[in-house]
Amino acid sequence: MRQPKSPKPGRRQILSLGAGAVSLASCTKAPEAAIPATAGNAANMRPYGERSSFEKPVRAIRSLSASSGTGSSRVPLADLYGMVTPSSLTYERHHAGVPTIDPAAHKLLVHGLVDRPLVFTMDDIRRFPSVSRICFLECGGNNLSDQRGESSPNVQQSHGLLSGVQWTGVPLSIVLREVGLQPKAKWMVAEGVDNCRMARSIPIEKALDDALLVYGQNGEALRPEQGYPLRLVLPGWEGNTNVKWLGRLNLVDQPAMSSKETAYYTELRSDGKAEMFSFVMEARSVITRPSGGRKIATGPGFHQIDGLAWSGRGKIKLVEVSVDGGKTWGKAELQEPVLDKALTAFRFPWKWDGQETVIQSRCVDETGYLQPTREELVAARGLFSGYHYNAIKPWKVMANGDVTHVPIVL
Amino acid sequence: MRQPKSPKPGRRQILSLGAGAVSLASCTKAPEAAIPATAGNAANMRPYGERSSFEKPVRAIRSLSASSGTGSSRVPLADLYGMVTPSSLTYERHHAGVPTIDPAAHKLLVHGLVDRPLVFTMDDIRRFPSVSRICFLECGGNNLSDQRGESSPNVQQSHGLLSGVQWTGVPLSIVLREVGLQPKAKWMVAEGVDNCRMARSIPIEKALDDALLVYGQNGEALRPEQGYPLRLVLPGWEGNTNVKWLGRLNLVDQPAMSSKETAYYTELRSDGKAEMFSFVMEARSVITRPSGGRKIATGPGFHQIDGLAWSGRGKIKLVEVSVDGGKTWGKAELQEPVLDKALTAFRFPWKWDGQETVIQSRCVDETGYLQPTREELVAARGLFSGYHYNAIKPWKVMANGDVTHVPIVL
Repeated sequence: MRQPKSPKPGRRQILSLGAGAVSLASCTKAPEAAIPATAGNAANMRPYGERSSFEKPVRAIRSLSASSGTGSSRVPLADLYGMVTPSSLTYERHHAGVPTIDPAAHKLLVHGLVDRPLVFTMDDIRRFPSVSRICFLECGGNNLSDQRGESSPNVQQSHGLLSGVQWTGVPLSIVLREVGLQPKAKWMVAEGVDNCRMARSIPIEKALDDALLVYGQNGEALRPEQGYPLRLVLPGWEGNTNVKWLGRLNLVDQPAMSSKETAYYTELRSDGKAEMFSFVMEARSVITRPSGGRKIATGPGFHQIDGLAWSGRGKIKLVEVSVDGGKTWGKAELQEPVLDKALTAFRFPWKWDGQETVIQSRCVDETGYLQPTREELVAARGLFSGYHYNAIKPWKVMANGDVTHVPIVL
Repeated sequence: MRQPKSPKPGRRQILSLGAGAVSLASCTKAPEAAIPATAGNAANMRPYGERSSFEKPVRAIRSLSASSGTGSSRVPLADLYGMVTPSSLTYERHHAGVPTIDPAAHKLLVHGLVDRPLVFTMDDIRRFPSVSRICFLECGGNNLSDQRGESSPNVQQSHGLLSGVQWTGVPLSIVLREVGLQPKAKWMVAEGVDNCRMARSIPIEKALDDALLVYGQNGEALRPEQGYPLRLVLPGWEGNTNVKWLGRLNLVDQPAMSSKETAYYTELRSDGKAEMFSFVMEARSVITRPSGGRKIATGPGFHQIDGLAWSGRGKIKLVEVSVDGGKTWGKAELQEPVLDKALTAFRFPWKWDGQETVIQSRCVDETGYLQPTREELVAARGLFSGYHYNAIKPWKVMANGDVTHVPIVL
């Protein structure tokens, strides 16, 4: 091997990166370091690996019950990358805990308005043709605190009921063809075998469109918290309709009016009436780095703004970022591949001048829908709709580098 | 909720799926089962989840040293789905174990034929613009046993030194611009800080093309076994050049002729000379289900053939499957998105008549390159080239459903 050379004394480097000059002052403390030492401490190989003990990001758990695993957990979005969320950090919302299910004993009953009611074992399900698909999954209540005016202090709290997943499973349309849908079957009641037998009514059009019965998540089996061994996935629709631990599909002529589509997951309007069956998650975007609760430790200069955009109506077409409190907007770069109803990472090069400012993103999906401001959304729906709050989320950058939420004035 | 109905007595269902009639006899044992029971056993939520205790697929470890973690581990491809391999099951090939590295102490030295030799901390690296990219990673020695004529009995053994990964990191070209490449810099020696200081020489053209310095894997930090905290990724090039635990990039005017590019990772030709610097992984495909060591338990009828195809030269354009020992070939369906230098899952509907047969796949990449037969490859390279063996892999299906390898006649 060649002999290493000592680095020359460092100096402030200027790097041109399209959006402006980039200062990398911190990498100039170099000369004393020279060749990095051998790390040593060789470990043995493991059949099933784990992350480094130096890595600490975890889901933020909110328990609604002391013992049952009922509640939610939010993804540490500010620490993650790309369009797929690690399975160990995928968000959760459980209404009666996480059941332990032996896949060899699990069965799916498909019945009601069908010619041939059938019970499928997991082996039966696996014999059908299968596909894989990357798409987002989001709780209908994501960013609920902001809707109420309690501006979430960080992106894990505000948007953490969101994940990107590579699902694998059987197109539901194939299974429905197998049982023989009757013409009167207009809705499908999907029910889990968890303790509350969580059930949602799904219009038959969605069931026949892109619905999947999934047993694979990110390349391996579904995780227990995601419905192991079988889950209904409805790309682009609110998470709650993606019924976990799926045990039954009942084909019916009208919705079941289950508790989770009446008492929950409906939007209270200003006139006191409620919107029901609001399934589609409209387009959203949010800046994940830098974001609330973090600090820009390296001071003024170049910083890449990272974020995510997604739409339940298709592909993301455009993301814009403002770094001046909304006065001007610039086009962000979208990370390829941009997929239908999937998380799309975006990036925006920012040369921060060290002054206090507000940064935020907004997106447009392929239908032309523009993510609304809070003012627009509140004007349209009032303050208490409770679900499907997809307004622009601003972050304040302080002169000392601290990033905070922007208080909401009601 | 509606009252559940008892399913009618089952009968053999016939489902038309393009390629032929599909028999789903096994799902007709239904009527006694009716409504699946509530699962119970609700578990609490976990900050960082784990897979179900019912799930058993693991990497197959081959140790070359009793204590140091030196050797390889192979991916259980027959049990996995889609284009991204779970991080806990990503393949490994270590030449001196897995070092434990504190990212706060890790440094990358970039020096040699550059204007400004610099040392970068991980914080420095993270300040550069970053991108995410899904691509395959494959050991140059994947399927080596078949090359030697020792036909691997299953797909984990034959093709398990292969993974699909969503990487996140900094385009190396940006870092090289920062240090200022000198015109004489034609090669880059990338060196790890593992115990053997694994080093490979990379042509500068690749370093400036699509090389990445990655710190993210599948949405979170790199796993220790994949080079935590920093790895060089060269999309489409043999795994060994994707140097893990990266500590140094030395810009030079000629290759270092390190042990891993002379004694290893060169191909012995029939004339006794060796091919060096054979970086690109040519197009391959393999059937993962059904594959050797497994059994088609459900007998004749419809079975989806699943597999993977990939090419270090670009996108996969075509995959063909033969279910009659190579006499005829049919076009497989490719799972979208088909990405550059990424794993592409394919599927092929097969109506098995219950007779003994041989199944196999072959692929064509966007350069028009056709995956060769074993005969073609041996004629071109002889029996002992040792690396880059990308021939078609056949599996024998026995009349009793057992799937085995096809012995190779030398």
